[in-house]
Amino acid sequence: MNILEIIGKKRDSKELTKEEIDYFVNNYTNGEITDYQASALVMAIYINGMTIEETTNLTLAMAHSGDILDLSEVGNVVDKHSTGGVGDKVTLILMPICAALGCKVAKMSGRGLGVTGGTKDKLEAIPGYKTEISIDEFIKNVNKIGISLIGQTLNLAPADKKLYALRDAINCTANIPLIASSIMSKKIASGANKLVLDVTCGSGAFMQNIEDAEELSKTMINIGKLANKETVCIITNMDQPLGRMVGNTLEVIEAIEALKGNMDEDVKNVVLELGAYILKLDGKGNDIEKNKKLIEEVIVNGKAYNKFLELISNQDGDISYIENYNKFEKSKYKLEVKSSISGYVHNLNAFKVGQIASLLGAGRQRKEDEIDYSVGIELLKKVGDKVQEQETLAYIYANDEQKGKQAVIDLQKAYLISAENVEKPKDILEIITFIKKSSLI
Amino acid sequence: MNILEIIGKKRDSKELTKEEIDYFVNNYTNGEITDYQASALVMAIYINGMTIEETTNLTLAMAHSGDILDLSEVGNVVDKHSTGGVGDKVTLILMPICAALGCKVAKMSGRGLGVTGGTKDKLEAIPGYKTEISIDEFIKNVNKIGISLIGQTLNLAPADKKLYALRDAINCTANIPLIASSIMSKKIASGANKLVLDVTCGSGAFMQNIEDAEELSKTMINIGKLANKETVCIITNMDQPLGRMVGNTLEVIEAIEALKGNMDEDVKNVVLELGAYILKLDGKGNDIEKNKKLIEEVIVNGKAYNKFLELISNQDGDISYIENYNKFEKSKYKLEVKSSISGYVHNLNAFKVGQIASLLGAGRQRKEDEIDYSVGIELLKKVGDKVQEQETLAYIYANDEQKGKQAVIDLQKAYLISAENVEKPKDILEIITFIKKSSLI
Repeated sequence: MNILEIIGKKRDSKELTKEEIDYFVNNYTNGEITDYQASALVMAIYINGMTIEETTNLTLAMAHSGDILDLSEVGNVVDKHSTGGVGDKVTLILMPICAALGCKVAKMSGRGLGVTGGTKDKLEAIPGYKTEISIDEFIKNVNKIGISLIGQTLNLAPADKKLYALRDAINCTANIPLIASSIMSKKIASGANKLVLDVTCGSGAFMQNIEDAEELSKTMINIGKLANKETVCIITNMDQPLGRMVGNTLEVIEAIEALKGNMDEDVKNVVLELGAYILKLDGKGNDIEKNKKLIEEVIVNGKAYNKFLELISNQDGDISYIENYNKFEKSKYKLEVKSSISGYVHNLNAFKVGQIASLLGAGRQRKEDEIDYSVGIELLKKVGDKVQEQETLAYIYANDEQKGKQAVIDLQKAYLISAENVEKPKDILEIITFIKKSSLI
Repeated sequence: MNILEIIGKKRDSKELTKEEIDYFVNNYTNGEITDYQASALVMAIYINGMTIEETTNLTLAMAHSGDILDLSEVGNVVDKHSTGGVGDKVTLILMPICAALGCKVAKMSGRGLGVTGGTKDKLEAIPGYKTEISIDEFIKNVNKIGISLIGQTLNLAPADKKLYALRDAINCTANIPLIASSIMSKKIASGANKLVLDVTCGSGAFMQNIEDAEELSKTMINIGKLANKETVCIITNMDQPLGRMVGNTLEVIEAIEALKGNMDEDVKNVVLELGAYILKLDGKGNDIEKNKKLIEEVIVNGKAYNKFLELISNQDGDISYIENYNKFEKSKYKLEVKSSISGYVHNLNAFKVGQIASLLGAGRQRKEDEIDYSVGIELLKKVGDKVQEQETLAYIYANDEQKGKQAVIDLQKAYLISAENVEKPKDILEIITFIKKSSLI
C-alpha cells in the first residue's frame, strides 16, 4: 500500500478500504505523507465523494489519531455539540440544566474563530474560571457535582486538526462528508457515548440551506449508526443570531438571565428541544414534551441556576460576578443603532452580525488574536418585530470609538426593514434521529 | 484574484480565464502559491478536465515562465520531439540527415529517466562531446555547420519542471491536457517555429493505446493551432523497443551504422516518416514520398554520415570513436539470451526491456544517478521473427555479473514466443497534422 495508489483510486472514483484510509490518516498525522499529497487526496474526495463506509472509516481513523478520552469512570455521557453560530450561548444555559436533572455533563468546548463564538472564550470571560484543568480533575469534578465544562486540553483527533487547516488553505471546507467526519471524529475522541448535535442552518452557519443541513445531519446519523453511537441531529435556524446578545461577557449575562427564567423565545425553543433529547438519550424520560416540562421546572425552582453557580465556583470562577453581573468590566462606549424607517424586520443577517462583533474584538480573525470580552452587540429587534422610525434596533458595545461608529453603520445595513408584516421564523427546522429501540423502553 | 477562488472554480468544473491561469503559473513559479495549493488545482484539473483554450493558456504561461530561446538569427527551425521510448535513437540519425539536406537543426535534448533513454546521455557517451555549451556557441554552431545538438542548458519552462515533479508525487502524470501542455511549453520555450512530434504508443510509452495517443496528438495539434505553430504528430509503435540496441554506447553504434545505410526496418520507417515531414515543414519539398527519397539519397551518398562526423567534431567529440566504434569501452560481460522453444516472437515488452537496461545501469532510477554507457541490450529477434529452440534472442552487455545473469532471466520473460506465425507490427500508426495552406505551395 502506498499513498500514490490511494490517491489514484480516489482520483478514479473508486472506494477506499478501511486499511487504505487508516494508512492515509496515520501517515499524514506522523508527517510521512506530505501536505501536497494529502491535498490531492482531499480534492479527489471533494469532487468524487465518499461512501458512508468511507466517511465512517475516516471519522474513526481521525478519532483514533490522538488521545481518546475515557469517561467510563463517569458513566453514560451524552455530549452536545453545535456546528457553530452567532450568539449561540446554548451550552452555557443547557448544560447546567441537564446536570440539575441528574445527567453527567463532561464537556470540552473549542474557541471561536471567524464569525463563530466559542464556549471556551465565554467561560473565560468569567474572572477566575479555569478552562484548562487536568483530565483527572475534570473527571473528579463531574463525579463530584455532575458537571464540568473545559477547553480542549487533550490532543484530540490531531489528524482532523491538520486536515481541517489544509482544507481551509485549498478551498475544500464546504464538503459534507469531510465536515461530518471532522465533527464526529472530535466527538468520538472526546469520549461521549451518545450525541445531540445542533446543526445550525442559515447565513450565520456552515450549512446555508436546509438541503445541506439535512444532508450533513443524515451523514452524521449514518456515521453514528456505523460507529454504534446513538445520535440526534436538530437542525436549528441560524439565519439571524440566536437570542439577544453577541459577545462574550454579554452572552454570559444573557445565560445568567436565561437560567433565572428570562429567556428569549428562540433561545428557549432551542434549549428545550436539545435538552429534551439529551434527557431522552440519557434515559431520564422518553416523552419529549414531558422532558421539556422537566427542564422548565429546574429553571423555575432555581436548581439550574444553582448548578451553574456550583459549576463556576467549582472551577475557581468568581461567582460574585454571576450574582451581580454589573461587576463585569463594561465597554467604554455603548452606541445606539436606530431604524431610519418604520416597518418590520425582514432579515437580520447572522453572518454580518458575527462579522461586526468580531471586528469590535469579540472574535478572532486569526487563531492567535486576543479577545476583548466586554465588546459586542445587543439586539433589541429581531426578524418579525415591528419597528418605528428612529426606534432603537440594537446597541453596540465598543472599546474603540471608530470601530464602534463603523459597527453602527454596518449593523444598520445588516437589518433589512420592510413595509409588509413578516412572520417570526421557525427556530427548530427539522429533527433526525438514530436512537436504538432499547433506549426507547 | 486569488488562488482559493481559482481552485474553487476548477473544483466546480468551471473554465479558468487566461488571467487566472497566468496568475497561477506565475505565482507557483515564484513560490507564492504553495505546493499543496497547486496540488489541489492539479487534481481538480485531472478530474474535471480543461478546455483546449485553458490547455493552450497553461502551455503558453509555462513556456513564458522562464527563458525563451530566440532562434531568429538562425532562421526557420523545425524542432523534432519524441514523447519517449526504449531504444529510440532517432534524433541521432535523423538530425544529421536533415542538416545534410539544408535544414537548420538547433535542438536541445533531455536526459533519460526511468525506462526512457535521453539523447543527451547518448551524446555524452561519445568521448569529448560537449552537450553543455553557451547559447551563443550553440547558435554559432548552427550558423556554421547547420546543426548543433545540446542539453537543456537554459532555464526553459521552470513552471513545467516544478509542476511535472509535483504531478509525479501525487499520481497525476497520466492526464492528456497536462502532458500536452508540458511537452508544448518546453518546445515553445526552445524557440522552434514548427514542430514534428513523434507520439510513441505502446507498452514502452506514456500513451499505452492508440486512443490515448490520438487524443494527445489532437490536443497538441490544437495547441499548435491556437499558438500559431505548425505541428505534425506522427504516432509510432513503441510496444517493442525501436531498432536493435538499447543502451547509450550501443545506440550510438546503431546510429553510426544507420547513417552508413545499415538501418533496421522499423528505425528506417520512423526516420523516413519524421524526416519527410520535417523537410515539408522546412519548405524543402511538399511530397512526402519524394522527401523520403531525398533522405535515402543523403544516406547513400555519405552526406548524412559526414554531417554527423562534422557535428561530433564541431562539439569537441573524438571522431576516431565514430570512425572506429570498436574503440568504445566495452562492457565486461556479454551474455547470451536463448529461446527455450521454437516458434515466433509474439511480443517483446518495451517497458520491461527498458527496465532491464535501466537496472543494468543504462538508465537512471533517480535524477541524480550516474549512467554506465557501455551496458545494455542487443535484440537479435523482434516481433514477427521466427526462432528455433536454443537460438540466440539477444545479448546482454553488463559490467556486473549478477546483474547480467538476472537480466538474462528477465529478458527471457520479456519475450513471448508463440507457435503461430505472427505478422510484423506496423511502425507508423497514424499521422495528424496542422500545416498551413501557405506552407503547401
